[in-house]
Amino acid sequence: MQPFSIAIHGGAGTLVRGMMTSEKEQAYNAALDRALSIGYSILEKNGTATEAVCAAVTSLEDCPLFNAGKGSVFTAQGTHEMDAALMEGASRNAGAVALVSGIKNPIQLARDVMLHSQHVLLAGEGAMAFAAQRGYETLPPSYFFDAFRHGQWTSIKDSDTVQLDHVKGDHKFGTVGAVACDCNGNLAAATSTGGMTNKKFGRIGDSPLIGSGTYANNQTCAVSCTGSGEFFIRGNVAYDVSCLISYAGKSLTEACNEVVHKHLIALGGDGGLIAVNAQAEITMAFNTEGMYRGYRHSQGYHFIGIYEN
Amino acid sequence: MQPFSIAIHGGAGTLVRGMMTSEKEQAYNAALDRALSIGYSILEKNGTATEAVCAAVTSLEDCPLFNAGKGSVFTAQGTHEMDAALMEGASRNAGAVALVSGIKNPIQLARDVMLHSQHVLLAGEGAMAFAAQRGYETLPPSYFFDAFRHGQWTSIKDSDTVQLDHVKGDHKFGTVGAVACDCNGNLAAATSTGGMTNKKFGRIGDSPLIGSGTYANNQTCAVSCTGSGEFFIRGNVAYDVSCLISYAGKSLTEACNEVVHKHLIALGGDGGLIAVNAQAEITMAFNTEGMYRGYRHSQGYHFIGIYEN
Repeated sequence: MQPFSIAIHGGAGTLVRGMMTSEKEQAYNAALDRALSIGYSILEKNGTATEAVCAAVTSLEDCPLFNAGKGSVFTAQGTHEMDAALMEGASRNAGAVALVSGIKNPIQLARDVMLHSQHVLLAGEGAMAFAAQRGYETLPPSYFFDAFRHGQWTSIKDSDTVQLDHVKGDHKFGTVGAVACDCNGNLAAATSTGGMTNKKFGRIGDSPLIGSGTYANNQTCAVSCTGSGEFFIRGNVAYDVSCLISYAGKSLTEACNEVVHKHLIALGGDGGLIAVNAQAEITMAFNTEGMYRGYRHSQGYHFIGIYEN
Repeated sequence: MQPFSIAIHGGAGTLVRGMMTSEKEQAYNAALDRALSIGYSILEKNGTATEAVCAAVTSLEDCPLFNAGKGSVFTAQGTHEMDAALMEGASRNAGAVALVSGIKNPIQLARDVMLHSQHVLLAGEGAMAFAAQRGYETLPPSYFFDAFRHGQWTSIKDSDTVQLDHVKGDHKFGTVGAVACDCNGNLAAATSTGGMTNKKFGRIGDSPLIGSGTYANNQTCAVSCTGSGEFFIRGNVAYDVSCLISYAGKSLTEACNEVVHKHLIALGGDGGLIAVNAQAEITMAFNTEGMYRGYRHSQGYHFIGIYEN
């Protein structure tokens, strides 16, 4: 039988054991496990990898703990600008949105871009017009309002400081993602982010960019990244993993480790990624202290973790 | 002595000998040669590859014949949305803008994003706010108004038709680009586009996406692409060329041909690319009938062409 698996992440960064209360730790673990179970149960019922990663990311977007969807951070204007991307490994079809606001689940909109537009990437007001045409509701800012994240923003909003996520001096990269291999050996990758606290100028990071933060190809792997987006863009991180497999004959794990621990570091970038291949193998690599992450595999493996070991 | 070289393109498509008047042909050839000379003269005076590609692309943006800058096509709203990217091969620094309007030379703004923002890609209103802060003037639509392109747009504006460039049924992909190797063996790539006629929804194509339409790395190559952008995004075309060189040991020409004539065609995409490496070798590959293109090399090679042979 073709094995199947799903892996998810909720961002990487300065996540050191003891920094969080055990209540908060449990809340993160529970949220990760919930998303994982939602995705896994789809795979178990012979659902597609695409359905599984979209459902898992939707669950993470709906959780205020992560910087995506409901938990998105505030831009310099006090609004939210969210990005998301989806790619399917069989067809290498892809859809992505950037700089959307008021959308409950940007990953669903990215999927609609893939299915119902002639394009891969739609951004800003244009993407919002597409969403309106597809019948999406625009939620009021109150849906996204979170006292903690609002406090982060008011503490730095008059400065030029831009934070990838919450705590000043604490490099925590809030992005969520999922990769899956279904029972037909088809792969998919999905990534969604609420961007950077206090970000300006319509910055687009790696998450919605195919080959940078998100990539899937049945022949090689499905990858979802999280980290200092500009470095992931310059390093074409997700596609780099794929090329090391297809052109340099590396295994999934070798490829992920080489990209995260060598290529990304050579550029000065930090963060991590999750990846699967069509044999349902899973790799999770990061060069930060921790990464919110988890996986489930049809052969019974089940893991949830935050810290390095 | 380290040789140096520059190559440019002005878009690829259904360019068949005899379809154009010889006057128009001469106008294109003259515009290409002008851009090439401007870039080459910078390299000749020991200027950098970055300066050369920016100057060459600026010249192409200022020419109404090409779909970039002044010659940009009309969106569905009757406006212009332009994208551009620049990448340097030594540092792999990059800057890009998407969905900007009223900017005379988007490639200059992309360079300023690289030099003066903490980001790689800025889009839409945010990118315009960055431009305003950098002192860019916003030109009125009349600067971009071109009777021919306006006619194209009015002929299809009430339909759902989206054209990559001018003539209905005529696949001509309007994008301009330049790649160069300077006398220090440093590479750079620049691409600029006016998008698709009648495009909607804030579509972003491959041009401003690092690794898709634009890429540079001194160890491998500098690449600028033109074609059906969505396929170039899904294929990570520019970075694919680089990976075939670094991971599969291909020569520049082998890598470009494999990507354009095999990988891109497997996805269903058409278009072309120009590339140089740090030995100043040049390759120009396309799977369309023609591509506006040209190159100059310090060893005396000089070429301008439109058609396949």
